[in-house]
Amino acid sequence: MWTAAEGIFDLGDFVLQSGTVLRNAKLAYKAHGRLNGNRTNVVLYPTQFAAQHGDIEWLIGSGHALDTDKYFVVVLDQLGNGLSSSPSNTAPPQDRSRFPTITIGDDVAAQHRLTVEGFRIRRIALVTGYSMGAQQTFQWGVSHPELVERIAPFCGTAKTTPHNAVFIEGVRAALTADVAWRNGDYENQPAAGLRAFARVYAGWGLSQPFYKQGLFRQIGFNSIDDFITGFWEPRYRRRDANNLLSMLQTWQLNDVGRTPGYDGSLERALGAIQAKTTVMASRTDLYFTPEDVEADASRIPGAGFRVIPSVWGHMAGAGVNPADCQFIEAEIKALLGR
Amino acid sequence: MWTAAEGIFDLGDFVLQSGTVLRNAKLAYKAHGRLNGNRTNVVLYPTQFAAQHGDIEWLIGSGHALDTDKYFVVVLDQLGNGLSSSPSNTAPPQDRSRFPTITIGDDVAAQHRLTVEGFRIRRIALVTGYSMGAQQTFQWGVSHPELVERIAPFCGTAKTTPHNAVFIEGVRAALTADVAWRNGDYENQPAAGLRAFARVYAGWGLSQPFYKQGLFRQIGFNSIDDFITGFWEPRYRRRDANNLLSMLQTWQLNDVGRTPGYDGSLERALGAIQAKTTVMASRTDLYFTPEDVEADASRIPGAGFRVIPSVWGHMAGAGVNPADCQFIEAEIKALLGR
Repeated sequence: MWTAAEGIFDLGDFVLQSGTVLRNAKLAYKAHGRLNGNRTNVVLYPTQFAAQHGDIEWLIGSGHALDTDKYFVVVLDQLGNGLSSSPSNTAPPQDRSRFPTITIGDDVAAQHRLTVEGFRIRRIALVTGYSMGAQQTFQWGVSHPELVERIAPFCGTAKTTPHNAVFIEGVRAALTADVAWRNGDYENQPAAGLRAFARVYAGWGLSQPFYKQGLFRQIGFNSIDDFITGFWEPRYRRRDANNLLSMLQTWQLNDVGRTPGYDGSLERALGAIQAKTTVMASRTDLYFTPEDVEADASRIPGAGFRVIPSVWGHMAGAGVNPADCQFIEAEIKALLGR
Repeated sequence: MWTAAEGIFDLGDFVLQSGTVLRNAKLAYKAHGRLNGNRTNVVLYPTQFAAQHGDIEWLIGSGHALDTDKYFVVVLDQLGNGLSSSPSNTAPPQDRSRFPTITIGDDVAAQHRLTVEGFRIRRIALVTGYSMGAQQTFQWGVSHPELVERIAPFCGTAKTTPHNAVFIEGVRAALTADVAWRNGDYENQPAAGLRAFARVYAGWGLSQPFYKQGLFRQIGFNSIDDFITGFWEPRYRRRDANNLLSMLQTWQLNDVGRTPGYDGSLERALGAIQAKTTVMASRTDLYFTPEDVEADASRIPGAGFRVIPSVWGHMAGAGVNPADCQFIEAEIKALLGR
């Protein structure tokens, strides 16, 4: 019925959790594999911070955890990521810094529209995602317990922790210290700010032992300077500054307890998840620490919690280090077999 | 003979480890207590990054670890800190960004001149210091094993680790992303850059559980925003940007293995320390991790290693949290009793 296809779903005038209406809203996605006749083989896979659907395909394909011989895998572009509605592609008066505040709940509401109205799906075999994708995965489990059979969030939390919010303040301040940012009304991207953003991020994205062991050599960089300049800077300099700031705000506000009906209670919201659940954390993640992720997992009825035995820090979930990829794929396969 | 007195020691034309001559160099210090008749009751206490001698007096006083009833305590201002020779107070052509590169070895060489020529001291009961002060403490033990009876470095390493160097790249990039920095030739301090620097630092300076537990309330701040704005920003905005950058460079280059005679060998340099040694680390320090600090301690003959059981991260050693202060003071007292 469907094969690998990029698409844009028209959300129309989309009412956000804040009450603001995002005009002429769009949700981008890419679908892989084929939807079966009774529409029961659906996997949703939302993107993480600064990523677009083409960036996270390592989990997808014949023989992979998200096996396209069996599953219809829909990669969902988060609002603000430059493909779905974003500061960079929205018409005035909601353009640039005037783009409204998006919550993880808004992302999932938009994705729900695509799933139910667009694909007419009533059952989702799995939602999985990394980092901000994990945030959306938790949110799917909370918002739509009747729809979602399984969730596998990895390297993310259901509510942004205070320390993580401070980390976000730091990278935001680095980006906006560049006068070329001009409160978002730049003509050209604020290059110095994006560079600073990337260089700060480089310290958080991996772990102390990763750098000590020089593991950047495994992915083709021969020094720390080469790694920061050759890997981290291009990673963010290819993005639009306002888009990054929009996603940072969404990240900072992330809290499934704010789902309507839960009155701000993280415990009650996570307790309402019915999906079979496997939550994963990286042993050395500096901002989604294993302790914080485990605390979320412990509040989900029957959830499994697994620690990826990695020194790749947060990047253990990024699909870069083969051993970590194998660990994550094996856990997702095991969950899909349940 | 001496009572609490601030002073400036004239180093003259001071040859740096790089071979560059720092013209008309000055070393600032503050001495507490009295030097005894045989000049054997000396404690040296170098400052840490961005600190000046008045900032670190919590360890000093009657009944404290650095007991002024017994010891002659000399707080030594690191080069670049705004009181000793620094980018901000050095005449052209060595002013501002043209101030030469300083190493921890240079700091200790300058301090040695003050100690031996200025105070005519031949025996040092203790060198102790926090963070970059710990770096100078290790260096004292390596450079002058015949002079130093005891060392107590806390929350610092003898060689800057790769991850720590990446962290430094991040805060440096944040500061210098501000066009007002003007490569160091600013008229007014680059306020946005210093603000970004402080906000990035806020994430590194404490730990994830510190923020989760809201412990900033114990020191008078009622929210994370209040803490970042009221504590971290003033902490660095009171400093000169070029001075901070100079000290960052010194920090990044720190390596006692570069002491002449050791051919870059950290192991051999630390192995040459003869002082009775107690090394301390904070359990939750994000950039001088307990693992890294312990590795240094294990290379010093007979050294003790103690972990401060704190969630205050790197700030466990800053003299702010009473329980951490008590731990550190008790360990230093025990070392002085040996």
